[in-house]
Amino acid sequence: MSDPSIPASHRDLLDAAGVAILSTIGDDGYPQSTALWFLLDGEVIRTSLHRSRQKYKNLLTRPQATLFVLDPANPYRTVEIRGDVTFDDDADKVFIRRLLAHYGQDPDTFPAPTDDRVVLTLTAGHVVAFGDEAG
Amino acid sequence: MSDPSIPASHRDLLDAAGVAILSTIGDDGYPQSTALWFLLDGEVIRTSLHRSRQKYKNLLTRPQATLFVLDPANPYRTVEIRGDVTFDDDADKVFIRRLLAHYGQDPDTFPAPTDDRVVLTLTAGHVVAFGDEAG
Repeated sequence: MSDPSIPASHRDLLDAAGVAILSTIGDDGYPQSTALWFLLDGEVIRTSLHRSRQKYKNLLTRPQATLFVLDPANPYRTVEIRGDVTFDDDADKVFIRRLLAHYGQDPDTFPAPTDDRVVLTLTAGHVVAFGDEAG
Repeated sequence: MSDPSIPASHRDLLDAAGVAILSTIGDDGYPQSTALWFLLDGEVIRTSLHRSRQKYKNLLTRPQATLFVLDPANPYRTVEIRGDVTFDDDADKVFIRRLLAHYGQDPDTFPAPTDDRVVLTLTAGHVVAFGDEAG
């Protein structure tokens, strides 16, 4: 299955507070992958990046990314979202607080820097889903 | 942590018959990720690809890949292996049979094509591990 929209059969994987793998392309031409928290926000994926992170630097140069999520209960049920990335400032920390709350964390006590972060928005250009619906 | 060798702390993730995410770069310049079975074979990663698969075509053009494995019991324990890919023929099916057996499958009855496959070898050039040892 390949379509620019997120199939209803796999939306649960994106609504759950799970871990996704974001892949970018480094200056050396190798893909780079990291695990991160994210939110499905309407039809786009958003996450929060610290400006010091390599993936942020990679994406400033090449704003193409792929988010991959596998069902923890069935690793053969997966969804891959390829698309273009844009960034917005999060100086007021509205987004990082929302993301932390989605993962059940208290934004006031969570032990990670909330300063100097940006909101990454990934707009799906191509979606590939494998495996049946959860059931 | 970043080193070209696979840390002992995360070797269990590569020895287990788990699912890895392989990322390649498509002709369109986007990373592409898929879940697959693999083997740690000494110090290299090997897997089997059907020649019809997009990732095989991607890698013929750009032989740079990243394999990412997360601990199913702790998604914050991860290992990422970036490196160069080479291919060998598997006309005699020795490797695909070995890979299927590692995953507890009977190579004689497994319902996937074993013809027209190649052995992908990923040699680690850069390894990034996060999270503590299992235990």
